[in-house]
Amino acid sequence: MYEGFSREQLLRRRLDIEKKYNGFKELNLKLDMSRGKPSDEQLSLSNGIFDNVSDLTAEGGIDCRNYGVVDGLIEMKRLFAEILGVSPDEVIAGDGSSLKMMYDAIARSFNHGIMGNTPWSKLKKVKFLCPSPGYDRHFFICELFKIEMITIPMNDDGPDMDVVEAIAGEDESVKGIWCTPMYSNPTGVIYSDEVVKRFAKMKTKAEDFRIFWDNAYVVHHLYEENKLLNILDECKKAGNPDRVFMFTSTSKISFAGAGVAAMAASRGNMEYIKKQLAAQTIGPNKINQLLHVRFFKDLNGIKAHMKKHAELLRPKFEAVLDILDRNLGNLNIASWTRPKGGYFISFNTQKGCAKELVARAREAGVSFTAAGATYPYGIDPDDKNIRIAPSYPPLAELKMAMEIFCTCVELVTLRKIL
Amino acid sequence: MYEGFSREQLLRRRLDIEKKYNGFKELNLKLDMSRGKPSDEQLSLSNGIFDNVSDLTAEGGIDCRNYGVVDGLIEMKRLFAEILGVSPDEVIAGDGSSLKMMYDAIARSFNHGIMGNTPWSKLKKVKFLCPSPGYDRHFFICELFKIEMITIPMNDDGPDMDVVEAIAGEDESVKGIWCTPMYSNPTGVIYSDEVVKRFAKMKTKAEDFRIFWDNAYVVHHLYEENKLLNILDECKKAGNPDRVFMFTSTSKISFAGAGVAAMAASRGNMEYIKKQLAAQTIGPNKINQLLHVRFFKDLNGIKAHMKKHAELLRPKFEAVLDILDRNLGNLNIASWTRPKGGYFISFNTQKGCAKELVARAREAGVSFTAAGATYPYGIDPDDKNIRIAPSYPPLAELKMAMEIFCTCVELVTLRKIL
Repeated sequence: MYEGFSREQLLRRRLDIEKKYNGFKELNLKLDMSRGKPSDEQLSLSNGIFDNVSDLTAEGGIDCRNYGVVDGLIEMKRLFAEILGVSPDEVIAGDGSSLKMMYDAIARSFNHGIMGNTPWSKLKKVKFLCPSPGYDRHFFICELFKIEMITIPMNDDGPDMDVVEAIAGEDESVKGIWCTPMYSNPTGVIYSDEVVKRFAKMKTKAEDFRIFWDNAYVVHHLYEENKLLNILDECKKAGNPDRVFMFTSTSKISFAGAGVAAMAASRGNMEYIKKQLAAQTIGPNKINQLLHVRFFKDLNGIKAHMKKHAELLRPKFEAVLDILDRNLGNLNIASWTRPKGGYFISFNTQKGCAKELVARAREAGVSFTAAGATYPYGIDPDDKNIRIAPSYPPLAELKMAMEIFCTCVELVTLRKIL
Repeated sequence: MYEGFSREQLLRRRLDIEKKYNGFKELNLKLDMSRGKPSDEQLSLSNGIFDNVSDLTAEGGIDCRNYGVVDGLIEMKRLFAEILGVSPDEVIAGDGSSLKMMYDAIARSFNHGIMGNTPWSKLKKVKFLCPSPGYDRHFFICELFKIEMITIPMNDDGPDMDVVEAIAGEDESVKGIWCTPMYSNPTGVIYSDEVVKRFAKMKTKAEDFRIFWDNAYVVHHLYEENKLLNILDECKKAGNPDRVFMFTSTSKISFAGAGVAAMAASRGNMEYIKKQLAAQTIGPNKINQLLHVRFFKDLNGIKAHMKKHAELLRPKFEAVLDILDRNLGNLNIASWTRPKGGYFISFNTQKGCAKELVARAREAGVSFTAAGATYPYGIDPDDKNIRIAPSYPPLAELKMAMEIFCTCVELVTLRKIL
């Protein structure tokens, strides 16, 4: 930290940084860096979805305006099957929220049980493995269901599989794990082939252990296409075909508030889930599904569209990294990821600085995701991780926000060490 | 039954009817009278919903294409508040399916409990009161959750409140009741003011007893507007403000497969539910909500639109009643309702004839809702109730289907009594 600085130099630097910080405060800004929302320009890429509404008849003559088709249109399932590398009959296409589908899958496991196993509500204890830093909304679901969360360290190639295997292999109350395997939220990690294979092969004490495979950023590359091994294939090869529940959505492909979400799993799982789903609903919004398929057509259409997203996102990610490098690159007081896709940059301060940093940034008019949010129960044991979401603000605002952020990093660090 | 007919005349009539029935069979028809689906003409009344998509910004500058607003757009909540006679902050506007919202409300009660009460999953037994004949999909939800269903007789003014009060007042495991208070499914009954008041005032042994008030046909009048007493108001007056969960949707106003659904309840309930909902989802499809509000504008817009539906539905209901009257009116072998709104005509055969009747109709190419479906567990104790859904088929098909139906009624009855 601050190698080569004398104490006097550091004290002077703190004075400079405090002056700079107060200057920012006087600007009375109000910048939001807290959520991974697409920008107006990104959303506008999909405005053409509504261009073709004169006839709302889907394959097989299905009138999308009327009731029915509990698991979604076949053409929508086919498109998700292409995206996820599964078969259309392993897919359920729903309404817009994949988070809701995950919540539903957990709720069904509690109320009705998975494939004939004891409903989790009848068990004394249910635990989930939570690779962290991870996605706060996964953890909120666990909190609501009083599922005990066990933090799993994240490595550069995915969750620490030694720990995962040890715990899942021994404890029958461990029923699942949350994974964002592609451009992980917030670290940007892509799970390695070995990690995926170990997930597929590992022994689990609980027969109804499920990997909640939230493939939210499956086609969300910033540069060239990166590959993720297909976990359903690997699970089948390993003789554990029913182990994984896959999820994805078009939230960050089309409209974050009005896309289409999907769940995929083995036919064994699907048989049970579809039976239960038939009591839950008469069907999802098929008009929205039809309009999506008409607009994107197939996986190639999706890929071409995601290139346009990347063109809008890349300058923002690069601006953030550039400002971090320029301001903090030589100080050795923080570290951050350089993701190749997804929506976040994961930033680590010195221990015990993250909360203070978010508070100081807020005081200067820039809101970040609450420190700790990326850990179970909102408690980062080292109080060092902050999630940076570059997508939403216009570039000029983003740059300003990051300059303020860097100033706050120094401010908090200098105050702490001096 | 068949007053004034000699045995010989009846035998001859059976021969005639059998001949007529066989003639119908030879037509190889395939007519569907099974579900209460709107017709193509009805759905087309709302095609204009997509006319105005150039700007998707809602009140308060909310971009409907992006994330957020967990309980729905304020303008959508305001419209549902008008429809249900509640305040906008007592409303959650969701995705399309009100059935899904009911399922969710039950699932939340099991997993998280109602307003701090013990989650139902922790109880040995949960029971629901089921006024019958009623809506099969309500009963399916109970079956999935293994909720014990208690059949409650339906009178002409609503459920038999003596029975409801006696059971709900004594048994703590009775946690709720299913009601379709306006143009009840399938009887067409409108709950009387007295019934609504007794619901609001009655003592319930369970503190977390909830009336599931499925107001699916709230504005679905066939003739003049009929009034239903506002149950939330009555519950408030009676000191039981939290007793009712109201539901409705635009499924049979706009698009059955792509409308907007809503739940309404006291602020006390809403406080708990919204907290839980925030862990379930980031929000519903706001684009669909915005387009609905733009198209319908307000309650007057809805009412004007429902008059167009009535114009399409009335001839169908009248044709069914006309054919029933003409064929069966003087025979005293069956009875049926003459609804003033909603989607169904409820038909009662002689005891023990309904299943046979549905089977014979199917053999002649006309499918009806399964006999028994209108009762818990699909078991009609008298095997006499059949739900007739006149809305979907074109008028000519409907008339043909009803002629066949009437022939089957006589066929089954004559075979039974001779």
